[in-house]
Amino acid sequence: MASGGLKTKRVDVTTQYLDLFANLIEGSDGGKREFLEIGRLAGNFPAASLGGSGHVAGPDSISVWCSNDYLGMGQHPAVLEAVKDAVDKYGAGAGGSRNIGGTNHYHVLLENELAALHGKDDALLFTSGYTANDGALSVIAGRMEGCIVFSDALNHASIIDGLRHSRAQKQIFRHNDPAHLEELIAAADPDAPKLIVAESVYSMNGDIAPLAELSDIAKRHGAMTYLDEVHAVGMYGPQGAGIAARDGIADDFTVIMGTLAKGFGTTGGYIAGPAEVIEAVRMFSRSFIFTTALPPALAAGATAAVRHLRTSEAEREQLWSNAQLMHRLLNERGIPFISDQTHIVSVLVRDEAVCKRMSTLLLDQHGIYVQAINAPSVRVGEEILRVAPGAVHTADDVHGFVDALDQVWKETGHPRMPATQAAPAH
Amino acid sequence: MASGGLKTKRVDVTTQYLDLFANLIEGSDGGKREFLEIGRLAGNFPAASLGGSGHVAGPDSISVWCSNDYLGMGQHPAVLEAVKDAVDKYGAGAGGSRNIGGTNHYHVLLENELAALHGKDDALLFTSGYTANDGALSVIAGRMEGCIVFSDALNHASIIDGLRHSRAQKQIFRHNDPAHLEELIAAADPDAPKLIVAESVYSMNGDIAPLAELSDIAKRHGAMTYLDEVHAVGMYGPQGAGIAARDGIADDFTVIMGTLAKGFGTTGGYIAGPAEVIEAVRMFSRSFIFTTALPPALAAGATAAVRHLRTSEAEREQLWSNAQLMHRLLNERGIPFISDQTHIVSVLVRDEAVCKRMSTLLLDQHGIYVQAINAPSVRVGEEILRVAPGAVHTADDVHGFVDALDQVWKETGHPRMPATQAAPAH
Repeated sequence: MASGGLKTKRVDVTTQYLDLFANLIEGSDGGKREFLEIGRLAGNFPAASLGGSGHVAGPDSISVWCSNDYLGMGQHPAVLEAVKDAVDKYGAGAGGSRNIGGTNHYHVLLENELAALHGKDDALLFTSGYTANDGALSVIAGRMEGCIVFSDALNHASIIDGLRHSRAQKQIFRHNDPAHLEELIAAADPDAPKLIVAESVYSMNGDIAPLAELSDIAKRHGAMTYLDEVHAVGMYGPQGAGIAARDGIADDFTVIMGTLAKGFGTTGGYIAGPAEVIEAVRMFSRSFIFTTALPPALAAGATAAVRHLRTSEAEREQLWSNAQLMHRLLNERGIPFISDQTHIVSVLVRDEAVCKRMSTLLLDQHGIYVQAINAPSVRVGEEILRVAPGAVHTADDVHGFVDALDQVWKETGHPRMPATQAAPAH
Repeated sequence: MASGGLKTKRVDVTTQYLDLFANLIEGSDGGKREFLEIGRLAGNFPAASLGGSGHVAGPDSISVWCSNDYLGMGQHPAVLEAVKDAVDKYGAGAGGSRNIGGTNHYHVLLENELAALHGKDDALLFTSGYTANDGALSVIAGRMEGCIVFSDALNHASIIDGLRHSRAQKQIFRHNDPAHLEELIAAADPDAPKLIVAESVYSMNGDIAPLAELSDIAKRHGAMTYLDEVHAVGMYGPQGAGIAARDGIADDFTVIMGTLAKGFGTTGGYIAGPAEVIEAVRMFSRSFIFTTALPPALAAGATAAVRHLRTSEAEREQLWSNAQLMHRLLNERGIPFISDQTHIVSVLVRDEAVCKRMSTLLLDQHGIYVQAINAPSVRVGEEILRVAPGAVHTADDVHGFVDALDQVWKETGHPRMPATQAAPAH
């Protein structure tokens, strides 16, 4: 009889399939993925403990430089207290979908807070940014008959999936290239509903979309707009409302999408927008309807994080100061990186093996954790070390990090750029 | 300039789209959905506080009869302590995807625990059951070239979406009808890879799949099997390993899929299966790769819940005792329900308006919350009150609930069944 603790008896019928999957794994460039097990120590982050099967040598305590908890809100006392208080009050989980017994007052409070943050009618929570983009775009693009979507070439996998699931006609414009967008949209049926989809800060490039130009094109061609600000909310703009708000044009974007799992340090995704759009997504989005709601305690924690960052500038100032310092130091050493526009500093290695080796050397010799980013997150030949100096780092930390990277660069004999060409100057 | 707290200025370009969405909402049968805001009181659940815009009349404190926290693990002290301890240790969120800085020791512990529970090589966590089915099936069915999928007609939306996203050829067999499955599979290309997908306990019917017959067909026709046990894990079988384990045939199912958000009271979904399959899903599943990991604290809480239910029978005994009592009492009153096989008691109303009215009367007059279930969760004309007597209810609670339902049935003048035909006898 089957019971816990026993390994599967591999009956013939299953065995015949396992080779298929073994070949699939073998055939993939990277082979089996090892995930580094880290414990980001609340109160001491960016310090983390290291453990698990992925790592045997090197230090026990490391410094994390690739977390998306950019502002350290995941360890902020107000956030942790809000989570624990809500756990004491309402328990660990939601117990149901939003429509069937799973809506708690904390969900509603958080949605109200997010709508206010973005100056929109309403907001809708999802369990993740992935399901937010998937669920929202499949409804928005999918329910406007004849809709043509214009999507930036580097939009995130969740946007690609949402648009694919919408089955709407889709045209891809070159990354951050408004002229190309203009060309495509001008050639499209003027009477068709149109949707422009972009991100404000691109996750793997760290560059910023030309929002004013996108908005201008949208207005001239009568297009609706959907802006993913997951790497911007909390970090940029007045009250942390994002890049569009920083540029004073948040009103130009019909829907703003964000996450609670990066700058706000907790978990979940959301959209904010006009009441009609939010309500339609609430009614029809399968990834919203057919899933258990966020744990109320996490909604409480996220609300505390949003509220804190609406009034506190300290975290944003520290983040930006560290980012600028790192841009300057990398430039001085001739270490190439993609963009100096944001806190996401993508160090260009352009070689999978070297990139992995650099990541390993940083960890083993310097106690620094930066994940090597390979396909499918970036294209083959575009491998990067994606560095995220955060509000939790000090200026000394940034100096130490660049010194370590400099040594690793030397040790691997990887080519440098002339200092002036490492990245666009400020 | 845009900033928080201001409502969107509705520029012309947006306004022209809002009517489209307003019409969409208007055109839907149910119109705008109101979600009842409840606070399931930790330590006192099934009691909950009531608040928010969805409800103005009636009591302030209610009793919840439609939660999927079937065993009350969402308020179990061991679970709450595990969550709070982990929040103190590692903070509120994961800070990254599993591959990029987001893997914590608690994720690994939980995956090991789940693999052991199901007697499989390995397990993989997702942020929800929806993304688990979506991500796992799109890879499993999608990466076996020429795969033909045989899927039960009542499989959950997340299974339907995963299979759709796999783009694999799909055949639907009539709900819980192995003869129909046999017919379809016998007519299919004998050399094609085959996958049979079913649930053990069906969410909206509360009935159980004929697992031995499905397994027998799979063996005879060389099909791989994928069994969704979300409404069974924790509740049935030795150590709460589910229905297949209860029937001693867990080894016959290649992949067992489950959730942490129902019987285990927290949040997240998972699959357990052979190492090769789990690794392939880990490598290729977009809903796994491109999302922030579960908060470590929730993984810690889920681990505590799984461990508790692997040794404690008390919750399962109470659940089943309440379920049997409710089946008997409903039968005696001639109140029809779909199945007496599980703790999910779907009271058949078959009329959307009456169903909603019964739900409202139960809430306003009796302080009882049971959500009326309409399309798209069930087909039009199949509306139900989905009642879930749980381990947190007492026998007295069950008597009181059926008395209240009986009064509401009377008040609405809804027809009854002869007592012997209300549902299949035990």
